[in-house]
Amino acid sequence: MSSSYNGGIKFSLFGESHGKGIGVVLDNLPSGISIDLNKVGEFMARRAPKKDGTSTTRNEKDIPEILSGLYEGKTTGTPLSAVIFNSDQQSGDYGNIAHIARPAHADYTGYLRYNGANDPRGGGHFSGRITAPLCFAGAVCGQILEARGITTGAHIRSIKGVSDEAFDPVNISAEQLELVKSRSFPTLSETAETQMREVINNARMAQDSVGGIVECAAVGFPAGIGSPMLDGLENIISQLVFAIPAVKGIEFGNGFECAELFGSENNDEFSLKDGKIVTKTNNHGGILGGISSGMPIIFRVAFKATPSISQPQKSVDFKAMTEEELIIKGRHDPCVVPRAVPCVESALNIALLSALLEYPSLEG
Amino acid sequence: MSSSYNGGIKFSLFGESHGKGIGVVLDNLPSGISIDLNKVGEFMARRAPKKDGTSTTRNEKDIPEILSGLYEGKTTGTPLSAVIFNSDQQSGDYGNIAHIARPAHADYTGYLRYNGANDPRGGGHFSGRITAPLCFAGAVCGQILEARGITTGAHIRSIKGVSDEAFDPVNISAEQLELVKSRSFPTLSETAETQMREVINNARMAQDSVGGIVECAAVGFPAGIGSPMLDGLENIISQLVFAIPAVKGIEFGNGFECAELFGSENNDEFSLKDGKIVTKTNNHGGILGGISSGMPIIFRVAFKATPSISQPQKSVDFKAMTEEELIIKGRHDPCVVPRAVPCVESALNIALLSALLEYPSLEG
Amino acid sequence: MSSSYNGGIKFSLFGESHGKGIGVVLDNLPSGISIDLNKVGEFMARRAPKKDGTSTTRNEKDIPEILSGLYEGKTTGTPLSAVIFNSDQQSGDYGNIAHIARPAHADYTGYLRYNGANDPRGGGHFSGRITAPLCFAGAVCGQILEARGITTGAHIRSIKGVSDEAFDPVNISAEQLELVKSRSFPTLSETAETQMREVINNARMAQDSVGGIVECAAVGFPAGIGSPMLDGLENIISQLVFAIPAVKGIEFGNGFECAELFGSENNDEFSLKDGKIVTKTNNHGGILGGISSGMPIIFRVAFKATPSISQPQKSVDFKAMTEEELIIKGRHDPCVVPRAVPCVESALNIALLSALLEYPSLEG
Amino acid sequence: MSSSYNGGIKFSLFGESHGKGIGVVLDNLPSGISIDLNKVGEFMARRAPKKDGTSTTRNEKDIPEILSGLYEGKTTGTPLSAVIFNSDQQSGDYGNIAHIARPAHADYTGYLRYNGANDPRGGGHFSGRITAPLCFAGAVCGQILEARGITTGAHIRSIKGVSDEAFDPVNISAEQLELVKSRSFPTLSETAETQMREVINNARMAQDSVGGIVECAAVGFPAGIGSPMLDGLENIISQLVFAIPAVKGIEFGNGFECAELFGSENNDEFSLKDGKIVTKTNNHGGILGGISSGMPIIFRVAFKATPSISQPQKSVDFKAMTEEELIIKGRHDPCVVPRAVPCVESALNIALLSALLEYPSLEG
Repeated sequence: MSSSYNGGIKFSLFGESHGKGIGVVLDNLPSGISIDLNKVGEFMARRAPKKDGTSTTRNEKDIPEILSGLYEGKTTGTPLSAVIFNSDQQSGDYGNIAHIARPAHADYTGYLRYNGANDPRGGGHFSGRITAPLCFAGAVCGQILEARGITTGAHIRSIKGVSDEAFDPVNISAEQLELVKSRSFPTLSETAETQMREVINNARMAQDSVGGIVECAAVGFPAGIGSPMLDGLENIISQLVFAIPAVKGIEFGNGFECAELFGSENNDEFSLKDGKIVTKTNNHGGILGGISSGMPIIFRVAFKATPSISQPQKSVDFKAMTEEELIIKGRHDPCVVPRAVPCVESALNIALLSALLEYPSLEG
Repeated sequence: MSSSYNGGIKFSLFGESHGKGIGVVLDNLPSGISIDLNKVGEFMARRAPKKDGTSTTRNEKDIPEILSGLYEGKTTGTPLSAVIFNSDQQSGDYGNIAHIARPAHADYTGYLRYNGANDPRGGGHFSGRITAPLCFAGAVCGQILEARGITTGAHIRSIKGVSDEAFDPVNISAEQLELVKSRSFPTLSETAETQMREVINNARMAQDSVGGIVECAAVGFPAGIGSPMLDGLENIISQLVFAIPAVKGIEFGNGFECAELFGSENNDEFSLKDGKIVTKTNNHGGILGGISSGMPIIFRVAFKATPSISQPQKSVDFKAMTEEELIIKGRHDPCVVPRAVPCVESALNIALLSALLEYPSLEG
Repeated sequence: MSSSYNGGIKFSLFGESHGKGIGVVLDNLPSGISIDLNKVGEFMARRAPKKDGTSTTRNEKDIPEILSGLYEGKTTGTPLSAVIFNSDQQSGDYGNIAHIARPAHADYTGYLRYNGANDPRGGGHFSGRITAPLCFAGAVCGQILEARGITTGAHIRSIKGVSDEAFDPVNISAEQLELVKSRSFPTLSETAETQMREVINNARMAQDSVGGIVECAAVGFPAGIGSPMLDGLENIISQLVFAIPAVKGIEFGNGFECAELFGSENNDEFSLKDGKIVTKTNNHGGILGGISSGMPIIFRVAFKATPSISQPQKSVDFKAMTEEELIIKGRHDPCVVPRAVPCVESALNIALLSALLEYPSLEG
Repeated sequence: MSSSYNGGIKFSLFGESHGKGIGVVLDNLPSGISIDLNKVGEFMARRAPKKDGTSTTRNEKDIPEILSGLYEGKTTGTPLSAVIFNSDQQSGDYGNIAHIARPAHADYTGYLRYNGANDPRGGGHFSGRITAPLCFAGAVCGQILEARGITTGAHIRSIKGVSDEAFDPVNISAEQLELVKSRSFPTLSETAETQMREVINNARMAQDSVGGIVECAAVGFPAGIGSPMLDGLENIISQLVFAIPAVKGIEFGNGFECAELFGSENNDEFSLKDGKIVTKTNNHGGILGGISSGMPIIFRVAFKATPSISQPQKSVDFKAMTEEELIIKGRHDPCVVPRAVPCVESALNIALLSALLEYPSLEG
């Protein structure tokens, strides 16, 4: 595969950071679904660089041009394609480091993988910029989910030691998800926002960077969707989440904490509520055996600190095979986490819509 | 897909816990590779129930019968299929709980997913038993990796509060991996083994169960294998790891800890060692941009406590829609973690061989 | 892929002619569908060798043993697997020709493809025997189609100069399809049967073989199923049909004849009949733009004469690189066409069910 | 899938006839291959409308804009995307027939498939225009094949009764393929050209259209590439060829004629020539058991007459459910076959490169 996904939804991402354009082709969408392009734009704006010191000052308008698949405002069911033309590129910033591997970046591994033929400018196809078309796809899939009463949303769970409140895994509501998505800095608690902004700002001032954790949830997703083994919701979501650069871990429900609990503590007992089957707790994160239980789907994703920092770093020129000191110039996010929030939602949106579409409809 | 994987290696798992047999078809294997069936048997024996109190007493001989794909001891390159016939089934143990959802099991979600038509006995296709053919596939792929100088291995990193030493992410060696795989209880430290056995035994005596964390590594894997975005090593490994029942999280390199570090701390600087490019630290877990860096590949997987416990639990009869108390009879693992170790290795073996096979060989 | 298919239905075929067993795993079947195993057996018996001089006398009982995926007579929705154990193998018959390429067989190409590691006995995985599990899959899919009012069937359209009547492309009915399927020698006309049997018998007496054409149809398939471009019904059907050894061509509707017609002759005009949209003629074979039109689906498949003939043939020992004369011993079909009829139906059944399952159900 | 292909090469086609643009994303190309864009343009020009009366006068410049995947003239190995912006659209020509099904077109089936949401202008995604990006993909893949000494080419084998000479299936050479590709009207014989032009012109004058047969070949393709069963060269080529609108049949080697021959006539005997294994005849068309034999690959494809003719036709308004007379306005090809020639080559180029890339390289 490489940069294409071939589940219920199929998509193919393309583009390099400093090439002519980036984009996505979304195949197998249901037809006749109204897509509100303004809302798509708003969704994508949450990923765009901010002017508030938390991100790069690179000016990315990132307005996707839709080339096909939308007719009179509705999905045609044939491939929906969107292109974002690159404009503000400033390749010169990267010229001097062409063969000195930036630590924690894919310069060296990409060079090996493509025998030196890949576009190195700004990380090329490895750039975080390719998450813009991912967010386009996520926004479109999200609107299709919404039309069926499914709401997804994410917030910053923590940034280097500063934690936001957690989602309530049992009672998290569509309203709360909408609310946190509407915030310019997506935390549940304003105190957390203030402290996180400070941590990020301090990192920026110190020519350093920080990472963090994003927590993501879906409510309204029907029970009984997914599959055991290879094509369960956890498999799909994680495959898609790891498409986002800088992700180093994912956990569902109570996640790694489950390793510390007795079965009698970890098991979510079933009960009836308003004639519906629910669990009293939601350690399982809404997924059992790869299949949705009807409880909120909930997971967390760990992001490493932005690899690009302005401090001098030791590295290697992988062409000359010499040890070098490296100074990275250019504009960089001191923390990718705020902009990563809609990316994680996008991965979830695509995964959930894929699973819905894969669900066979011919049962006896 | 459901229970098939369609990467460089393709495989299709089948079977139900109490059906006639379980097995796997492995397609697209390279041809002409010698497979040592005794070693395959030893690998699978690590997953089989032990008589030491840490697992179920269910007597699973689990000798795979190879039906095709192996000729004169070597892979033919055409599909390699193996069947394990179920013998010791005792379905009666499960009869009385057919429609009362066992907490943390897939009884209820599976019932919805398959409209009540799936085989409910012993969890059916959701049973941990289906990891036996997964281990068969993993053992075969592991031997093919070994023939190329690649060694994988895993150990129990922790069980409910008791931790083993961690793998050294920079210096972990093939010898250490072989050693820990040879142990009947796979920990690095014997103290950890003693304490973990005690924790498991206590849980068993209390009619309870415990979870834990498995740490897995590969050494000798060449740099430059993998892909950005959707088909990176992390994407593939995580998709395969979540095929193992009870997994709730996965993290690569320093994983969730990366969210607590500055970029200046987290970045692994490159240097030269014996004319080879290495990193001084290995927070990235041997994968950058989805592609191997040549450093050890390292990740951890969280397992929840065995859902089946003998204590009374509250639940729901999802057919009658009544609240019920549930007593689970039958034989169950007080802790799946020791038996899960080769399952995690299997997921890694399949993923790494898939990535090697997907690596295009026609570069200009 | 190799021997697996990954559409709406996924399946993985395995086995070698003289190995332990052959079989198939069918994944993604709808759950809860009753499967009549006697009817599956009858379907497969149509592919089995006959004692009437038209086929090999190899004694293949070919009773599939179902290992999983069927519970209380219904599909579980989890992988349905079936194995046929090989019993009557007589490998000795093939021993002396191991490296002398049998003309029109895959001995030489298979040797190259698998670097000499594939099982050469009886053609190994290239054997026509692997169509037995294909027919198992086709029989199961056919029953699921039948439950939705879709009937498929095929007949021998011609054998070396002797033609049967053609299906009426507009009025062919389910009853006619059932009738021809029930015949031991599947032709519409009894005269054709007599003449074809004579042609086959003459070929057998002359130590020679003959080919022919199979015509296949489906009625009751709903309009609007399929896709443009890569995943249309013609694409899927042809991909599956070419899995049958000895197929050299496929044509839909009026097929190659269309190249001789004016547009004004070839275009099928639409009209209304009993309030339903139909075409007056059916040159398009029930498929327009890859999508079903509601008219009978109809296509023809060309089979070459059985490559194995008892006459001396000139060939090459591809290991010794010497020219040799070859005498093929063993038992062979003087004509594969009668036994190929259910194989072609199987390809169609799988294709149609796949297309039905891929049809998205979330339209706005 | 729909409009994406997921073999060794993955590609995703998008666009509608009268939308903003059409294009393709090509994923998994080998990196570092020089692509001559002038030659790509020349290849695509062969598909573009001609001013010689054989095709529509629609003015399609069809210059693909490459957005990614090419850096300093070479493939990067990351997705190569190309867009052709639609300019000369004249949707008005189609307005009046929006819901009257054009016979032999996909208006009605597409309407059903997409619940009326697909773009109907000019056939939308069903338009032959989508073969422009297919040809872009084919041109790129063709250059990669050429760099390995593999040459493909096609010619018009017949148009309504007028036949060109056939390719010599044994001795066809790269030079002959290059020569016929260089001709503005691709036939081997100039007499055939003259007669075919006349047939096409007569059809145009009579407000009618004609179909024909394209014959396509590859030389220099190495022996041993492909797979048995589902992923053989015939399976791949036919799946791709049926992506071209108006194709109704495909046959390999001697094709349907094989049904008329004895095995002793049809079998291609092997011999040695200059120390290489060859066959004296090439009825098998260079493919045995799905795998290349080293002989020229050869196949023929049947195209129906252009469905759009200016004569009045009877049809149905599928929205109003009334019978109507239909007059198709607009500009149409009286014969698609000359322009289809590079489309067939493209399908072959993609198929052969896919097969080369899928060939595993880790044999023991």
